[in-house]
Amino acid sequence: MSVKLDLSQPGPDLTAALVDIESVSGNESAIADAVEAALSSYSHLSVSRHGNTVVARTGLGRAERIVVAGHLDTVPVNANLPSRRADGLIHGLGACDMKGGVAVGLRLAASLTEPNRDLTYVFYDCEEVEAERNGLGRLAAERPDLLEGVFAVVMEPSNAVVEAGCQGTQRVDVITRGKRSHSARWWMGVNAIHAAGEVLARLQSYQPRRVPIDGLEYREGLNAVGISGGVAGNVLPDECRVSVNYRFAPSRSEDEAFAHLRDVFDGLEVELRDSAPGALPGLTRPAAAAFAEAVGGKVSPKFGWTDVARFTALGIPAVNYGPGDPQLAHTQAEFVPESEILECERRLRAWLA
Amino acid sequence: MSVKLDLSQPGPDLTAALVDIESVSGNESAIADAVEAALSSYSHLSVSRHGNTVVARTGLGRAERIVVAGHLDTVPVNANLPSRRADGLIHGLGACDMKGGVAVGLRLAASLTEPNRDLTYVFYDCEEVEAERNGLGRLAAERPDLLEGVFAVVMEPSNAVVEAGCQGTQRVDVITRGKRSHSARWWMGVNAIHAAGEVLARLQSYQPRRVPIDGLEYREGLNAVGISGGVAGNVLPDECRVSVNYRFAPSRSEDEAFAHLRDVFDGLEVELRDSAPGALPGLTRPAAAAFAEAVGGKVSPKFGWTDVARFTALGIPAVNYGPGDPQLAHTQAEFVPESEILECERRLRAWLA
Repeated sequence: MSVKLDLSQPGPDLTAALVDIESVSGNESAIADAVEAALSSYSHLSVSRHGNTVVARTGLGRAERIVVAGHLDTVPVNANLPSRRADGLIHGLGACDMKGGVAVGLRLAASLTEPNRDLTYVFYDCEEVEAERNGLGRLAAERPDLLEGVFAVVMEPSNAVVEAGCQGTQRVDVITRGKRSHSARWWMGVNAIHAAGEVLARLQSYQPRRVPIDGLEYREGLNAVGISGGVAGNVLPDECRVSVNYRFAPSRSEDEAFAHLRDVFDGLEVELRDSAPGALPGLTRPAAAAFAEAVGGKVSPKFGWTDVARFTALGIPAVNYGPGDPQLAHTQAEFVPESEILECERRLRAWLA
Repeated sequence: MSVKLDLSQPGPDLTAALVDIESVSGNESAIADAVEAALSSYSHLSVSRHGNTVVARTGLGRAERIVVAGHLDTVPVNANLPSRRADGLIHGLGACDMKGGVAVGLRLAASLTEPNRDLTYVFYDCEEVEAERNGLGRLAAERPDLLEGVFAVVMEPSNAVVEAGCQGTQRVDVITRGKRSHSARWWMGVNAIHAAGEVLARLQSYQPRRVPIDGLEYREGLNAVGISGGVAGNVLPDECRVSVNYRFAPSRSEDEAFAHLRDVFDGLEVELRDSAPGALPGLTRPAAAAFAEAVGGKVSPKFGWTDVARFTALGIPAVNYGPGDPQLAHTQAEFVPESEILECERRLRAWLA
């Protein structure tokens, strides 16, 4: 069931078409096929495919090259497909995070045949899951040449306002152990799930920091995102795992973040599962400041982790800029305003044309 | 890979052979095949198969009929297969619960060609899981004629001592709900797993009753046997389920037990998943008292739920009597003493020959 994408249709229509191609992390082949096929019909672009990541580049020999990046995947379906349009809003899974931004990127790729800077568009997979599966990370490891540039725009939802920096993210399992026994003779065993009450109590009483950097306030968070335990309906469980996600201000390193988690869960077993560093807002860098000025001047902090951090680690200044309210990302009722899709495209086109 | 069982070998050898046929609940076809094939070679038995339950009956026209029952399934594998013998003990999954008892039943079935009472042997599946899957329950519903009798011996581990009555068991899900959001903007959501801390706190502070009945003391218990929650590694979870198992004294009805659980978890959502009543010890019934006297006189309370309750509900007096320490049931290191296998067989043989 291959889907054909028309990149000449207006950005809002294209957004709805992208939402209607289900692309939960790990299931991006259909959308990547559609994106690859659509871009391949434009002779000003060289298109390459890397797993379910699609790269399209102009090769005009300009003095500077800009990277525009967006992920194709979404969090799991939550009774929010297909797309639905009403009152100038596009509702549906991924509408906000981040098919509106992908639509803007695809429209620019198709229509900017003579940009003032060379452009590299990257549409990639597995952003919403463990860092090690991230398509952009894979590309950075295998084909760093394809990511070269003087500046990157990551089109994550940011209310069509420049968001600078991003928080780091770390996932740990906090594990409690017990001893199995028949639940009818519970005094012979130790219940690992009951012991996890301590983990949840510490999470509930935790006071996250608010950290000011370059005039922006980053707001940390510590949350259980998963819990599992149990052997059978009549057996005292000998293990319980709480998966905890820590979002930390970019002034804290990954090592410092993990040390903090070990402190919070002192006396408990903590296993590091996944980690990605934050990125300082870098508002003092000329490229970031110039871009922000070109598209409107206002700058906000980014709470969520985005691949801005990955570009920062590669030495490429980067910002988030895209349609949609980031507070709606990953919610059942996420939507993106048509007006922001149009505004982002107009401002980027003015900057690049 | 069909296995041939030799019912003329000594009970301990037969027990080890039964342990070595893995038969975790739901996977009993191999052991049921072996049991059915072995029993079918004896002309004094009529053998019938019902799913993975095998029934063998004598038809001598005796005045009374006795039912001897044992389940073929075990709890999940826990690095305790194959069987291992040392110092007069048989170690391995199901050795205690209850392949030692099954071996005794099979040996009696094969060798008691002229018992003083007619006998019905029932070897059944899915005792260790939800009551609705229980093979004996299925038989009681579909072929109650096959379970007729004046008295039943359920060969659950009881230290080769008569255990009377059994506790009831009930499983409920206690559910906490929240609201999904991106974990980087946790203040937009409500974390259902954090809310489950209240469920675990109530379980930890719960004081189970000790209930005296007919001179026996029943010891209740309330334990989490499973917990689950989580949507994705970067999403605040909107639901968490704690599966709770309540073991209650046989003087409490199922309705009373559920009312008690609703009280314990007052203010929380409680869903009934599975329930089975207890059975009063019934030591005043002549059949139970006579059997206890015949095999040794001592009587203990049964903490675990067993199908004694099912026979009681069918109007058939029943007791637990089998080799193995019930406190070892469902533990990783369960074992059964060879001496108890031999003693149970000897005493039952003396009563029935």
